[in-house]
Amino acid sequence: MEAREYTQANLDLLREQLEGGRMRAARVMVNSLHPSEVARLLESLPLKKRAMLWEIVDHDIEGDVLVEVADEVRDGLLEDMGTDELVAAVDGMEVDDLADLLVDLPEAVTKEVLQSLDKQDQELFLSRLLTNDPDEMVANVMSTDVMPIPANTPESEVVWEFENRDLLSAPVVDDNYRVLGRITVDDVVDVIRDEAEHSLMSAAGLDEEDDMFAPVVKSASRRAIWLGINLFTAFLAAAVVDQFQSAIDKVVLLAVLMPVVPSMGGVAGTQSLVIITRAIALGQINPGNAMGILRKEVMVGVLNGIGWAIFVAILTFWWFGNWHIGGILGAAMIINLVVAAAAGFGIPLALKKLRVDPALAGGVVLTTVTDVVGYMAFLGLGAIYLL
Amino acid sequence: MEAREYTQANLDLLREQLEGGRMRAARVMVNSLHPSEVARLLESLPLKKRAMLWEIVDHDIEGDVLVEVADEVRDGLLEDMGTDELVAAVDGMEVDDLADLLVDLPEAVTKEVLQSLDKQDQELFLSRLLTNDPDEMVANVMSTDVMPIPANTPESEVVWEFENRDLLSAPVVDDNYRVLGRITVDDVVDVIRDEAEHSLMSAAGLDEEDDMFAPVVKSASRRAIWLGINLFTAFLAAAVVDQFQSAIDKVVLLAVLMPVVPSMGGVAGTQSLVIITRAIALGQINPGNAMGILRKEVMVGVLNGIGWAIFVAILTFWWFGNWHIGGILGAAMIINLVVAAAAGFGIPLALKKLRVDPALAGGVVLTTVTDVVGYMAFLGLGAIYLL
Repeated sequence: MEAREYTQANLDLLREQLEGGRMRAARVMVNSLHPSEVARLLESLPLKKRAMLWEIVDHDIEGDVLVEVADEVRDGLLEDMGTDELVAAVDGMEVDDLADLLVDLPEAVTKEVLQSLDKQDQELFLSRLLTNDPDEMVANVMSTDVMPIPANTPESEVVWEFENRDLLSAPVVDDNYRVLGRITVDDVVDVIRDEAEHSLMSAAGLDEEDDMFAPVVKSASRRAIWLGINLFTAFLAAAVVDQFQSAIDKVVLLAVLMPVVPSMGGVAGTQSLVIITRAIALGQINPGNAMGILRKEVMVGVLNGIGWAIFVAILTFWWFGNWHIGGILGAAMIINLVVAAAAGFGIPLALKKLRVDPALAGGVVLTTVTDVVGYMAFLGLGAIYLL
Repeated sequence: MEAREYTQANLDLLREQLEGGRMRAARVMVNSLHPSEVARLLESLPLKKRAMLWEIVDHDIEGDVLVEVADEVRDGLLEDMGTDELVAAVDGMEVDDLADLLVDLPEAVTKEVLQSLDKQDQELFLSRLLTNDPDEMVANVMSTDVMPIPANTPESEVVWEFENRDLLSAPVVDDNYRVLGRITVDDVVDVIRDEAEHSLMSAAGLDEEDDMFAPVVKSASRRAIWLGINLFTAFLAAAVVDQFQSAIDKVVLLAVLMPVVPSMGGVAGTQSLVIITRAIALGQINPGNAMGILRKEVMVGVLNGIGWAIFVAILTFWWFGNWHIGGILGAAMIINLVVAAAAGFGIPLALKKLRVDPALAGGVVLTTVTDVVGYMAFLGLGAIYLL
């Protein structure tokens, strides 16, 4: 049995114990788990069972578990804890982990923790000096090949340093190059995971720190905003179709086939958008290569536009026995795929200039463009050539 | 100036030198970069300039650069290298990095590399033993708190181990627990980054290892497959609309408003889909909580369906002065948002059972469902109540 399956089996057993109220057995089991496993378990439990489990977690690992759980789950757990319990929970935690946690704690707790930290910190530095040969100079003991990271460096920049230089840890310094603390690679791994989940989830208007078991009304109102933005763009598309009422009234086949062109434009545009958004994030687009990339994306749009235009023209003729509407569908497809390629290139660059996250807004803006252009090209050509 | 900006300025300068043909200055500059920076630079250059740059990279770092570049870019670089050059390039590389590279090399090179590796490996182990006190027992030197990883463990499992146990490195063993090698955290960071990019890019039918500067025809034909799959689903939607030709013929407003319901269903369904797909990947869904999660997603769909139904009914009345079509639009919206929630829950679980990657196929299957149900609900209710 592999390690993950083994853990999964353990978690299933623990879940059964919680459900059966066998709290003594559950307590033994939960406290044999790694703090991050306890965190995953808490996240996967509905609110009531989550509170039951949190009750039986040992105080020694409570702090480490709090560092690992998603923000919203953490807020819920902290709400039910008293000051003394909180101080006990964070006692003995690593300084960098503690820094993550402090912002979420009540002021009274923060104060007490910082006082106890002062003492702890002094012991810390002492022990480092004491483990070295007393005759050795500090200059010989310290490592000098590591570039220190200024304290005000953005997270994404730190990740970039760690990834590109294969670092395991790095000192954090203030403006006078005094060491304030350190960053270790396990924190960087967490940030990379968070960033990746952020890209995926923000494209659907979601936040990666949300609790899967948040109350229905809370989740519904959060997601409603994104639906509202989309409703606006859907009515924009409807307003375009509205301009062609008389054409549809005369040739109802236009209504039947009108979903095809916007849909294909959305897919082709998303392909360019994803490639460009990633290239921006990796710092791979610059004035020297931008025009070449745009030209390539547009040429891909032209080729796929022509290819699929011929295919749909034949398909439409076979279905409806009508060459005219097939030709119009094909022509509109070419137009929309070329526009989609240019939009997939230009939108993320424009959003970046406007300091809007392309991962959040790129998809909505793009599909608005490909919907409007798609309906306009197909129904417009239909109105011109079929009436 | 921050480290990343500094590097960016360096890369821009280097690019200018390449363009101006100042190869001597470029050679000095490129060989002062970290191998991963050279890799990023190669990826961001069009094919001709890329070949020019590769010419002037020092042989000592060629191997490390090859490990860092995207697969397709690497293939291009390897094509132009002779056997001797390849053997020289991989000489002195770390064993775990070398393993990544070997599969892409010609057989003649692989053989020679493996022979030289045997020697190197022996020296390696020797040096480890020699740096320890000669009177010390091996049992006391080795660390025993690390769980060894079996050689046939899947990549995702290894990542899970490293993330959840904050490991820096781990031994890899065969079935008899003999140590075959080790995995270090920098390799795991690369895998996490690749996995994240895979999720993002496969949703658009793309591969994260593709070269942004691949020839137009190659890129176009790759992306064509995804467009073809989408064309099939778009014609499926058209076939649904086709069933309601006579209704649209009588009430053309149905055609004007018909994009709204499928579009809203797609967005709401994607929200559920993203949440469930992520929960599956984190191992957070189990028979004990599945029904509760489904119930919650459906309730969110009901709430948002009702909320936006009231809003669009009012909006449609204000626009067209028609309560009937507003009511139908609202009712269809509620139906589609509930179906979308259930589909967003069920599709990734079903795909996982079928051993299909939910990140790849989830979006297409979902929007097919929300398109078909959306058109059917809106036009169907229209045909029943407006004719």
